[in-house]
Amino acid sequence: MHPLDRATRLVRNADRSLTGRTDPAYANMVGPFGGVTAATMLNAALTHPERLGDPVALTVNYAGPLADGEFRIDAAPVRTNRSTQHWTITASQGDGVTTTATAVFALRRETWSSTETGFPQVPPAASLQRMQAGALAEWTKRYDMRFVRGGWPDGTKPDQEPDSVSTLWIRDDPPRPLDFLSLAAICDSFFPRVMIRRPRWVPAGTVSLTSYFHADAKRLAAEGERPVLGTARASHFGLGYHDQSAEIWSEDGALLATSHQIVYYKE
Amino acid sequence: MHPLDRATRLVRNADRSLTGRTDPAYANMVGPFGGVTAATMLNAALTHPERLGDPVALTVNYAGPLADGEFRIDAAPVRTNRSTQHWTITASQGDGVTTTATAVFALRRETWSSTETGFPQVPPAASLQRMQAGALAEWTKRYDMRFVRGGWPDGTKPDQEPDSVSTLWIRDDPPRPLDFLSLAAICDSFFPRVMIRRPRWVPAGTVSLTSYFHADAKRLAAEGERPVLGTARASHFGLGYHDQSAEIWSEDGALLATSHQIVYYKE
Repeated sequence: MHPLDRATRLVRNADRSLTGRTDPAYANMVGPFGGVTAATMLNAALTHPERLGDPVALTVNYAGPLADGEFRIDAAPVRTNRSTQHWTITASQGDGVTTTATAVFALRRETWSSTETGFPQVPPAASLQRMQAGALAEWTKRYDMRFVRGGWPDGTKPDQEPDSVSTLWIRDDPPRPLDFLSLAAICDSFFPRVMIRRPRWVPAGTVSLTSYFHADAKRLAAEGERPVLGTARASHFGLGYHDQSAEIWSEDGALLATSHQIVYYKE
Repeated sequence: MHPLDRATRLVRNADRSLTGRTDPAYANMVGPFGGVTAATMLNAALTHPERLGDPVALTVNYAGPLADGEFRIDAAPVRTNRSTQHWTITASQGDGVTTTATAVFALRRETWSSTETGFPQVPPAASLQRMQAGALAEWTKRYDMRFVRGGWPDGTKPDQEPDSVSTLWIRDDPPRPLDFLSLAAICDSFFPRVMIRRPRWVPAGTVSLTSYFHADAKRLAAEGERPVLGTARASHFGLGYHDQSAEIWSEDGALLATSHQIVYYKE
């Protein structure tokens, strides 16, 4: 079993709640990598017997720390229409809510289509060096990340960068066919923009993450184990929070997801 | 009382639920303007006796139609930390959930700050003509909108526009001092991007909206009744849904909010 499938696995209980368990393979500095938490919240809806269609939107709020070990998820389709379905999803440990989420699922069908954003001009993944995770958190070792620009600050640039843009090829390691679980996790795989910009380590963490999926399950499956291209930037830092907007592209230039988050930072 | 305050007003019931009522001043083609629904959901947290700090993030999911008349809102602070508070908010009519939301509030404090996005170079509001709402939905008459580009399609341009960008000055009409309620509503005041791009009327509606607030209450109050500058664009249209990213700027170039949504469209 791939570590991502193990980390996002949920067991359905008699009372319709689900039990999950954090996985050391995706450990962050404190608790699990938020991308895997997002994927696990999504999985509660994806594996629900009443699920309709594919995910279109997912918002995950990181309300409190998730301790290593078991957690409970309650997921309910609060409204099912003809072609859309709305979910509320809550994760908890003991009496404390750790994570809340909402998701919109839909039956997707062909319509007029267009991509307005340009596919970044970058060298192919194979021509770039893989980031050496070194002393970084364990979860970073579960990805093959090849930075075009905006990698982890290595301490050699004391001055502020002119912007917070990162662009990188990324895929699961070991390789795993792309699906909504892995895409939802990759949407949160960008280092906090404040660390790219300044560029140095700053205490920071995602508070709320929203991802929009522009591909259906069939399109994602066609990607197989190929890397995807991610690019992320901030528009504003201030009063302890900064935003981040990201795009995830297929190797052949299809926009698979756009993702936004608001990040707490100290200093 | 300003129509926005009337439309977002909530009465607290003995069971801690809230009762609101749709207001004809903000009527859309079907049900109320989504921006006022978003502001009303936010108001349930803003007016709650246990509220901590200012809103940082708000996600609103439009699960089903809101019929004209009364609705119920249940809002709970599901987790309160030292400096952040997480909310889940649900609106319903009878047995049916119409709208779900999550919000993050926080005590904001000064930190290192920077705006990476550029303030659009545009003529001042006073030099532009106000949009004539004409046959448009009633809610559009509650705003003074002055388009720099990307206004409502008037049927004179049969060909596709090269992009879906709209840029406009907007303020409440009658004028009203800016606060989180009006800013939350303005975040949803952009016409669906698909109509700007094609450019023609297309059945479309917001499914999920996420707004990030980059200013605190004091900063918003300092804006007074001045117009704000809004700009919005889509990155991808396909399989019945398109995204939208927007920025709301103060007249003097401060980024007040960034907002994202996913919009259903037919055809």
